[in-house]
Amino acid sequence: MSSTTGERLRAWLILGRIPGVGPRVAGRLVEHFGDPTRVLAAGRAELEAVGLKPALVDAILDPPEAAADADLAWAEGEGVQILARDDPRYPPLLAQLSAPPILLFVRGDPEVLKDPMLAIVGSRNPTPSGRETTGDFARHLAACGLTIVSGLAIGIDGAAHTGALEGGRTVAVLGTGPDRIYPAAHRDLARRIAQKGALVTEYPPGTAPIGRNFPRRNRMISGLSLGTLVTEAALKSGSLITARYAVEQGREVFAIPGSIHNPLARGCHALIRDGAKLVESAADILEELAPLLGPLTAETTEPDRNGSGDPGDLDADYLRLLENLGHDPVSPDDLIRRTGLPAQDIASMLLLLELKGYVSSCPGGRYCRSTMTN
Amino acid sequence: MSSTTGERLRAWLILGRIPGVGPRVAGRLVEHFGDPTRVLAAGRAELEAVGLKPALVDAILDPPEAAADADLAWAEGEGVQILARDDPRYPPLLAQLSAPPILLFVRGDPEVLKDPMLAIVGSRNPTPSGRETTGDFARHLAACGLTIVSGLAIGIDGAAHTGALEGGRTVAVLGTGPDRIYPAAHRDLARRIAQKGALVTEYPPGTAPIGRNFPRRNRMISGLSLGTLVTEAALKSGSLITARYAVEQGREVFAIPGSIHNPLARGCHALIRDGAKLVESAADILEELAPLLGPLTAETTEPDRNGSGDPGDLDADYLRLLENLGHDPVSPDDLIRRTGLPAQDIASMLLLLELKGYVSSCPGGRYCRSTMTN
Repeated sequence: MSSTTGERLRAWLILGRIPGVGPRVAGRLVEHFGDPTRVLAAGRAELEAVGLKPALVDAILDPPEAAADADLAWAEGEGVQILARDDPRYPPLLAQLSAPPILLFVRGDPEVLKDPMLAIVGSRNPTPSGRETTGDFARHLAACGLTIVSGLAIGIDGAAHTGALEGGRTVAVLGTGPDRIYPAAHRDLARRIAQKGALVTEYPPGTAPIGRNFPRRNRMISGLSLGTLVTEAALKSGSLITARYAVEQGREVFAIPGSIHNPLARGCHALIRDGAKLVESAADILEELAPLLGPLTAETTEPDRNGSGDPGDLDADYLRLLENLGHDPVSPDDLIRRTGLPAQDIASMLLLLELKGYVSSCPGGRYCRSTMTN
Repeated sequence: MSSTTGERLRAWLILGRIPGVGPRVAGRLVEHFGDPTRVLAAGRAELEAVGLKPALVDAILDPPEAAADADLAWAEGEGVQILARDDPRYPPLLAQLSAPPILLFVRGDPEVLKDPMLAIVGSRNPTPSGRETTGDFARHLAACGLTIVSGLAIGIDGAAHTGALEGGRTVAVLGTGPDRIYPAAHRDLARRIAQKGALVTEYPPGTAPIGRNFPRRNRMISGLSLGTLVTEAALKSGSLITARYAVEQGREVFAIPGSIHNPLARGCHALIRDGAKLVESAADILEELAPLLGPLTAETTEPDRNGSGDPGDLDADYLRLLENLGHDPVSPDDLIRRTGLPAQDIASMLLLLELKGYVSSCPGGRYCRSTMTN
């Protein structure tokens, strides 16, 4: 007799609440017994046969059912979705990790977790320019269909989420329970993220922001994503740990270089020396990810950077956009006004034109016609 | 009967003046006949047997002796040394190239061409910060015993020579004859370089600054050097050509990253993507070159970056320097004043202390004590 989805979810929650049962032990037990409900139905002798320590066997035989039931009730009341590891909505890239989280608490739309995602992380104390660059990249890439993942921290994380919200969707991975927002200064940002994307955490309700939980948060940020972009980071910073997780997980690492006089470029430079892709523009990232993205950017996978393309290939909207671009840099806002094209479309159209060599991006997020030198 | 050194030099000069005889043909001929004087003594039949085209045979049979004699007289009057390819003073790294220059015209001390050298090149229109960084690197590295090679152009080249003169020695490679200085704005700089290093060119007196000679000038800049550092350069610039020569010659390429909003960082970023070493400090270059430098930086080849070294290892002068360094950045000038140590020594002492982890370099060419974190 097989268990129902509801019974299994409750069993996962109970397992997750047992002290000493992390993702690795839970995975081993469920694999052994075939189902989380059967782990909890097992007797002492069966559990001991798996090789568990006596204290852990005792803990499993006295399962924290009340706490799990409280989690279920709380989640239902809050509209928070709980995705166990066997949930079809569980994000596939995260499932590839060794010992992925047992449970995800998701505030917002769980479907967003199946988007192609890019992590953007960096310093909590960025330079003004680093913050602006981060926002520009996030907005641009989100507008091209990459959902931006970050950690809701102040600084670069906040700029990444905010920029992404302007262009598309974003996911914040929390190091706390789903009932807490840390830092408090980002409460409003978190609310907007939940409306247009999702807040996600592997920690159950009530988990406070304690330092030792943040490395696992970082591991989920990179684990959800096709790649991780570090925009500004000091040496020996948490962002470099996230990048190291990305490498271990076989994902891409991107880093933006900066002045050698900027201490927050040091972390990025260290990553580049270790093999991260040096990134100057959003197009660099899309080109690198194109083979993984499939249809998302199918039309941008054959960049024609030498500008030899014939504008006649472009459709009417693109031609209208090009006609409104000169050699003086112009902002997307001005282009929206000049062309009447939807704001939502302009960013991705500009990126395509940039990849095809017709336009160049200029400082301050503006654009101009490329000089056709070849 | 073997020819004298003077006869051979005159023969090299004549060969070099024959239209159509470049380094490659001259090398082949001298290898075949065993000596440049024998090339000129050869008859038509012997020359044709080598496979030369008839026009070239005619030219060799009517050698431009007067022009060569004028070169010799001019050089003697000016104190310019002429080093033929078989001269023991010919720089050994340059001799390793395929088809090295037949002749070098050297104003200054030819011995400097045997120094371990580093090329520093870049844009003719650098940013103020790029210019300053270039000067800082050149001064620092010259003070550590690396002679700085560049091309006497305005911009980065000028900053490299000027910085190097403050710290040690420098060599300018000209794209003109040794009787011309181009650009004229660098006449005084050229005079100072000749006093403390050398001006060197493979072009005979009278050669005007024409564009097609400059790629060979670039090839000599990288060819004299253990490595080439590009500090600021646009894409598709001459500096990238010099870097490409360095790669072909099996030499190191170093590049300084910069802001993605600085168009003159693009060339450096392109080099880094293609495998150039990303450089944040002069120490990065010295560490990389240390195995090639041998005794020059023997005492700097075991950097102790984690700062676990015991200052008791240092001699009295170094301790005096350390005692005068605090955690607030201080300029080398202030350190000279505080310690009474010779200005000439301070730069290399600071570098050694930096490599050993005792001091850190700060923006503006200043220094402070390292925070010992380990």
